[in-house]
Amino acid sequence: MSEEKFNSDLNRTGELSNHVKFFEYKDTFELSSGEKLSEIKLAYETYGKLNNEKSNAILVCHAISGDSHVARHDKQDLPGWWDIMVGPGKSIDTDKYFVICSNVIGGCSGSTGPNSINPKTGKEFGSSFPVITVEDMVSAQKLLLDYFGIEKLLCVTGGSMGGFQSMQWAIQFPKKVESIIPIATSPRLTNQALAFDIVGRNAIKTDLNFKKGDYYQSNEKPEDGLAIARMLAHITYVSNDSLKRKFDNSRYDPKDISTEFENRFSVGSYLAYQGSKFVNRFDANSYITLSTAVDYFDIGQNITEISKTLEKSNCKWLVISFSSDWLYPPFQSEEIVNALINLDKPVSYSCINSNAGHDAFLLERGYGKLSSSFLENITGISSSKKSKNLSRSTTNIFFDERIDLKFITNLINDNERVLDLGCEDGTLLEELKKKNCKKLVGVEIDNKKVVESVSKGIEVINLDINTGLKRFNDNQFDVVILSQTLQSIKNVDETIEEILRISKRSIISFPNFAYKPLREMLFNQGKAPKAEGLYGYNWYNTPNRRFPTILDFQEFCNDKAIKIIEDYFLNTQEKKIVKEDPNLNCDTAIFVLSKN
Amino acid sequence: MSEEKFNSDLNRTGELSNHVKFFEYKDTFELSSGEKLSEIKLAYETYGKLNNEKSNAILVCHAISGDSHVARHDKQDLPGWWDIMVGPGKSIDTDKYFVICSNVIGGCSGSTGPNSINPKTGKEFGSSFPVITVEDMVSAQKLLLDYFGIEKLLCVTGGSMGGFQSMQWAIQFPKKVESIIPIATSPRLTNQALAFDIVGRNAIKTDLNFKKGDYYQSNEKPEDGLAIARMLAHITYVSNDSLKRKFDNSRYDPKDISTEFENRFSVGSYLAYQGSKFVNRFDANSYITLSTAVDYFDIGQNITEISKTLEKSNCKWLVISFSSDWLYPPFQSEEIVNALINLDKPVSYSCINSNAGHDAFLLERGYGKLSSSFLENITGISSSKKSKNLSRSTTNIFFDERIDLKFITNLINDNERVLDLGCEDGTLLEELKKKNCKKLVGVEIDNKKVVESVSKGIEVINLDINTGLKRFNDNQFDVVILSQTLQSIKNVDETIEEILRISKRSIISFPNFAYKPLREMLFNQGKAPKAEGLYGYNWYNTPNRRFPTILDFQEFCNDKAIKIIEDYFLNTQEKKIVKEDPNLNCDTAIFVLSKN
Repeated sequence: MSEEKFNSDLNRTGELSNHVKFFEYKDTFELSSGEKLSEIKLAYETYGKLNNEKSNAILVCHAISGDSHVARHDKQDLPGWWDIMVGPGKSIDTDKYFVICSNVIGGCSGSTGPNSINPKTGKEFGSSFPVITVEDMVSAQKLLLDYFGIEKLLCVTGGSMGGFQSMQWAIQFPKKVESIIPIATSPRLTNQALAFDIVGRNAIKTDLNFKKGDYYQSNEKPEDGLAIARMLAHITYVSNDSLKRKFDNSRYDPKDISTEFENRFSVGSYLAYQGSKFVNRFDANSYITLSTAVDYFDIGQNITEISKTLEKSNCKWLVISFSSDWLYPPFQSEEIVNALINLDKPVSYSCINSNAGHDAFLLERGYGKLSSSFLENITGISSSKKSKNLSRSTTNIFFDERIDLKFITNLINDNERVLDLGCEDGTLLEELKKKNCKKLVGVEIDNKKVVESVSKGIEVINLDINTGLKRFNDNQFDVVILSQTLQSIKNVDETIEEILRISKRSIISFPNFAYKPLREMLFNQGKAPKAEGLYGYNWYNTPNRRFPTILDFQEFCNDKAIKIIEDYFLNTQEKKIVKEDPNLNCDTAIFVLSKN
Repeated sequence: MSEEKFNSDLNRTGELSNHVKFFEYKDTFELSSGEKLSEIKLAYETYGKLNNEKSNAILVCHAISGDSHVARHDKQDLPGWWDIMVGPGKSIDTDKYFVICSNVIGGCSGSTGPNSINPKTGKEFGSSFPVITVEDMVSAQKLLLDYFGIEKLLCVTGGSMGGFQSMQWAIQFPKKVESIIPIATSPRLTNQALAFDIVGRNAIKTDLNFKKGDYYQSNEKPEDGLAIARMLAHITYVSNDSLKRKFDNSRYDPKDISTEFENRFSVGSYLAYQGSKFVNRFDANSYITLSTAVDYFDIGQNITEISKTLEKSNCKWLVISFSSDWLYPPFQSEEIVNALINLDKPVSYSCINSNAGHDAFLLERGYGKLSSSFLENITGISSSKKSKNLSRSTTNIFFDERIDLKFITNLINDNERVLDLGCEDGTLLEELKKKNCKKLVGVEIDNKKVVESVSKGIEVINLDINTGLKRFNDNQFDVVILSQTLQSIKNVDETIEEILRISKRSIISFPNFAYKPLREMLFNQGKAPKAEGLYGYNWYNTPNRRFPTILDFQEFCNDKAIKIIEDYFLNTQEKKIVKEDPNLNCDTAIFVLSKN
């Protein structure tokens, strides 16, 4: 097998770490269904120190097959399932933050679950264990936090089912969370993901050893069914591409393992191994309980429903998805983001490029900096950093300075809601922070620039302007800015129409290709106009698709019945506004538009 | 449930149609493994009439759960699995063609399979039934065709496992097939698809009623395992999108069915129904036998290996894939196409836009015209159609005629291999057919134009020039043409580099944006140059991304050390070549280039 890493390659034994502690709640625990457990126990682990203000606590929530052992406590310790993120000096820095992770209720790694002894009968719950929801998991965690005396969590985070829990916190205890980072998650499973879960559960339930869930007294456990459910789930956690890289060269060369399962192909050998390993550390009833909880989690089918659910949220959101995750595909994270934008709630979003599939949240280091920047901004650490001077920005139009940005800044009023399309590293929005704007949001297609913006404490949504504007509401913003981006837009008509729809006022700036030196280039030299400076591309490698002139744009607005409220024509070389024949004398145009 | 159609909704009972006939081969049938069956039987159906020359026979091959009943024989008949394609007046027109479809060996719908009586023992084969390969399926079909006295099949076609069989025919009996149409298929399964199959077989084999395959004498059959395998497979046949449309609104509203499987969610209810229906019409051993045959089918892991396998092929290929098919994804069909191109074999390819997933081959009518055009061209029917006059083509540059195409035609010599990038409806290639070219291939991104080209008997590959040229070999073509397409290319550098790599000579024509009226437009009017006629787009809606001038292009060639062998500068309005200051006086340039 190749070096390709899968999360499930983590050599976890199923034993509990020595660092696990237990929280026992000896009172009645009422479930969301109305059913009751006479007492519950939670297995948990902590990392780092809770500060005196109890303001540095981060709750990490695990996915379906996870447990409280999120990271190693020391070098001798067993590997944790999120060692890439949690630890001293890591993105969730245990030198700064107090990290708590508990095994969910219904699980089988120390917390109360179907394999626990029912105090009423003295035997395992088995088939009598109640249906558990994500709400119940969060209610149980809340008891643990009360025990610690934590009034408000700095952050709740987790991937997959852990993402569900983080969102549930924001809905269920809106005053108890400062921020959440839901990762590789969704408003509810797709019907495809739901279907896979159902087939897995059917495999367990039709295993003759399952005995309707009351198998604890038997010698035979429903191991075949559970192994098959796990094999199936495992396929959905990884991508087609990662399976190719791992198994394509060794296709007919299975490992020499002892298994009752088919062992003809290398991928089959791997699945057999994963399935068998899983049955040694996981309980079939817990698997059914937790996967059912996952399947019933549902914050809404569409933006209206999701918005209704999330209305209660009172925290900052950082939503993260992965490009190759087909179990919780990025478009589902975007549905959550859309609803939050719809509600004017603070949210940043990034879709991380990865080919690891759903497991990417356990493997990709690419979202570490994003998360740590987000957390630092919440704790206020980054505010100590010196804000860059706008005029020293490295982005210029033709020459040294983005004087167009200064002009645009002056066009924004206090108390306005502003959306900057193509916000790059957030320079303009950072400048606008000095004003008393009600809302500042950026849209940026480049992941790296999203991180830079988040580092500045700016809300930014990672999306493509060419396809992503429909998520915004009519008149959602007072001002939408499209600064020096018009020339690379795929569909100008549609995009401007969208901008006008979602804003009361739109500010559009672009380089004027009828500027005298550019006209002369074509007329006298017979060459395609090539600007100097930032937009100085050759005809064959320019990202620009459009070569608008001031006159073209004015005619366009006229044809489309778009109202030009104001216009400013700049000669950035001479750093001044020019009134005389601007289409000839200016290199940059700024238009302020509105619907008619 | 919505109106969304799934193939498996076909209300097939599992009974054989009254029209099924049986072919019995009473001699030893040797399998590719070396094992022998002392006799075999094939269930088959035929449609239409075999002509006197026996030259109009089309063999249709079914997918894993299919049978010989490809279409209705009359209105009273049961629905067939490919009624959309096969019948009087349909794409595979039974008024013209003699269609044969037989149940594969190893199947359970009338042909010899694990549930047949082993003549040696008088009992069902069960666990003693040998491993069957796609090669064996084809060998058995060949016996049936010998019985009909058919020397050469006009076409072999089928989707999925049926596609495997069609390709196997091309490899195994290259002189016996005129053409093949492999649909929704691949060189071999992805590891992901393989993994799903393995999990399905594991579910059957661990069903306690399976008894290692010898369950025919028991009252209990391995129905749970088979149903689970089918449910799982079913999910992979449809797309996430089609599941959403079918089940999203009724998510918590399962059908009131009697089932031992979970029935909480509508998609679960549907799967339970499908699983149970399947066990009534299919045998678990056959499922294992056929899915194993599918998993072992392998014509190569990469283009080198696939090319080696396909070297024997001597027929025309039409390869068809579907955009949302994630079980046999389009990139896999493209691997087959790449290998055929690599070998200079005749091939056309189209990726059909569909959101039905793998089942699209059973549901989408969109590829009917493509297939019928392809077949008509092979039988020579289309040759009776009058070839259009080139000068009457509706495509023009600025004015009425594509005189640039006439020039390009004159630049091509007999015996050359020619590739036309962006061939549109095949006008230029059709004209070039009058020359004695060794090979003519078009590349076109638009599906509808692919059909038009195929109708003209032109080989055309449905792909995007911006990403698809790497599949061609160094110097594979004598001439590569890029006619009036340069201006919409995403990455000019890279594309021209690729064109030079794959051709000995490249012919590139483009509109010259330094043509006098265009220069004047920018200089005098201050407006972005807008051509007249075919390329007369507005700045805001042009598909063009580039505005090259003759001078720019000459400088580009000079900078990149590209050799300009010849150049022609046309004023298409005056229908003449202009030698004086062409960058000012010509609207169109044609360059003939080569590597230096």
